[in-house]
Amino acid sequence: MDAVVMQEVRALIFDTFGTLVDWRGSLVADLSAWGAQRGLNVDWPALADAWRAAYRPSMDRVRRGERPWTRLDDLHRASLEALAPRFGLANLEQADLDHVNHVWHRLQGWPDTTPGLYRLKRRFVIAPLSNGNVSLLVDMAKASDLPWDTVFGSDVFRHYKPDPETYLGACDLLSLPASRVLMVAAHNGDLAAARALGLRTAFIPRPQEHGPGQTTDLRAESDWDVVAGSVEELADRLGA
Amino acid sequence: MDAVVMQEVRALIFDTFGTLVDWRGSLVADLSAWGAQRGLNVDWPALADAWRAAYRPSMDRVRRGERPWTRLDDLHRASLEALAPRFGLANLEQADLDHVNHVWHRLQGWPDTTPGLYRLKRRFVIAPLSNGNVSLLVDMAKASDLPWDTVFGSDVFRHYKPDPETYLGACDLLSLPASRVLMVAAHNGDLAAARALGLRTAFIPRPQEHGPGQTTDLRAESDWDVVAGSVEELADRLGA
Repeated sequence: MDAVVMQEVRALIFDTFGTLVDWRGSLVADLSAWGAQRGLNVDWPALADAWRAAYRPSMDRVRRGERPWTRLDDLHRASLEALAPRFGLANLEQADLDHVNHVWHRLQGWPDTTPGLYRLKRRFVIAPLSNGNVSLLVDMAKASDLPWDTVFGSDVFRHYKPDPETYLGACDLLSLPASRVLMVAAHNGDLAAARALGLRTAFIPRPQEHGPGQTTDLRAESDWDVVAGSVEELADRLGA
Repeated sequence: MDAVVMQEVRALIFDTFGTLVDWRGSLVADLSAWGAQRGLNVDWPALADAWRAAYRPSMDRVRRGERPWTRLDDLHRASLEALAPRFGLANLEQADLDHVNHVWHRLQGWPDTTPGLYRLKRRFVIAPLSNGNVSLLVDMAKASDLPWDTVFGSDVFRHYKPDPETYLGACDLLSLPASRVLMVAAHNGDLAAARALGLRTAFIPRPQEHGPGQTTDLRAESDWDVVAGSVEELADRLGA
């Protein structure tokens, strides 16, 4: 990013799942420990992958108007209930299903996430722009020490990314033109949607997000304004 | 507040102007120093009072639908422009008017505000529920060290308090029933509106909010769930 563009940026908005938090590793670690206490024999990595595979289709049904606005917690819950029989979880009580479903509130950051965000917060307004709902993101921030200035959950806009209402809604609430807002993500598609609306873009590859066999988003697929190896490197690049 | 009710509360939402920040004292101190540098001779306390007197009527025009949704920054700006000739500010350039208008982004907290919020944040989700817009509240939080978990500005809901959409909208984004959310304010009317919708209520008197001649909200006018002398005393009362 050239210096002139960089000087204009006032706020950074972040994708969270994958970009800042290790959803797959956290989910497996959290639920393996919990399941072991209960003597459950579950293939947690396979559940993580199957649950995540249901994520985009469930949001797309909302995006296409096939179901009314539904917050991500409730989409996650419906997907979990559908998967439960296949993974030996059909007999869980409602409170246990709630606990499993809320694993998304307890995800842990990559090692560079928290130190990088603290540095960036000193110079910029920082906020998530996530498909998670506000309460999920607030709980995640407390669990993982993410020092947000404010939280843009999808339920603020009642739209899921990549709907334009999310990116532009965040800019509007920040009282900033899109050119002064930098979208940070580990997903090329998220950045392409943001760039099309005039936002600045920063790519941080997370080649382990989907585990050892990841095949997508291994590298920048366009000339994003910044490409950085970590949130701390992003802070370096932005002089924070 | 009895112990059972207290144990149910998960989130605290705060009025900001007056309750947490000393808008009148901050405005006078900030603009007096700025004006002195420029040789301006302005009765800043009188401007503060006149500006604040325009606040409720300007929001009520939006609330009654007489003008479309307008964020507080823009209501403040229109009021300031109307007052400028009377206070010797008619010749200010646009950039200077912007600086004056943004004094609301630079308000300072009462002495107990920041230490009390840090304590409460350890145990509860904490957020402002303010008629300020998100960008105003984010800037205020940075200027005054208010460690919010998230920020509920009126522009999230496109409604001003005491419209029910604000209180209920905050509960919805928190994924909590109203009975688990505690509204904290220095204004009896704000708490009455919150209570009517099922929220819990805490009153913190701020008898100097309007300066030495204040006549309103000097004391609790109902049996609010908590009455505390400061944010720190509120933290004491809630075991935080």
